Amino acid sequence: MRALGRHVLAEVYGCSFEILNDIKKVEEIMVKAALEAGAEIREVCFHKFSPQGVSGVVVISESHLAIHTWPELGYAAVDVFTCGERVNPWDACRYLTEQFRAGEVHATEIERGVMESPRAAAVNL
Amino acid sequence: MRALGRHVLAEVYGCSFEILNDIKKVEEIMVKAALEAGAEIREVCFHKFSPQGVSGVVVISESHLAIHTWPELGYAAVDVFTCGERVNPWDACRYLTEQFRAGEVHATEIERGVMESPRAAAVNL
Repeated sequence: MRALGRHVLAEVYGCSFEILNDIKKVEEIMVKAALEAGAEIREVCFHKFSPQGVSGVVVISESHLAIHTWPELGYAAVDVFTCGERVNPWDACRYLTEQFRAGEVHATEIERGVMESPRAAAVNL
Repeated sequence: MRALGRHVLAEVYGCSFEILNDIKKVEEIMVKAALEAGAEIREVCFHKFSPQGVSGVVVISESHLAIHTWPELGYAAVDVFTCGERVNPWDACRYLTEQFRAGEVHATEIERGVMESPRAAAVNL
């Protein structure tokens, strides 16, 4: 594999206001999405905005899952970044879009950390 | 503005092993990068891996900054996601790549939450 990681950016539309505005529910879905993909959870960090909206991140050994919700628009911006061969970001993405009962999802995968010499050389080692 | 947010993905190469492996330093740079861009910090969440590497996220009112470092490769995967007109993700990006003394940076901006009806309609409101 040329790239160190895979970063899926998902535009999740058509979700219910109630789910997207429920910090406990959003956190639970994101944590379970990480586990569903076989990731190892390291830190969980969520925040509820007033009057609405949730932002949060699950830091995993394999990178992270992040979400920002706009309940009033039925929209969530999700990104799932994984490194290594074992965890597939699309497994997490599929799980969470199902759980959010999204009406429409646009997702794209971006390669991260494409290593070609001389880029791979660290300085000051 | 058609999009709700701007998401800058930065491939940061040629950094020193010492900085990328120092959780306190990485956290400090990321927090200051958020402040440099005028963002409001909500949560800070970092993790140190063994034998090396740091992952962390700064959740801001305007979305997030995330980083994953591979000190042994002199590489960091950074993303800076901001919403609203007030905060410019490139200000944070510029600051942090300077602080990491990156030899080479490849960065790209992706629009998030492009709202066009009927996507903007939430269900179950």
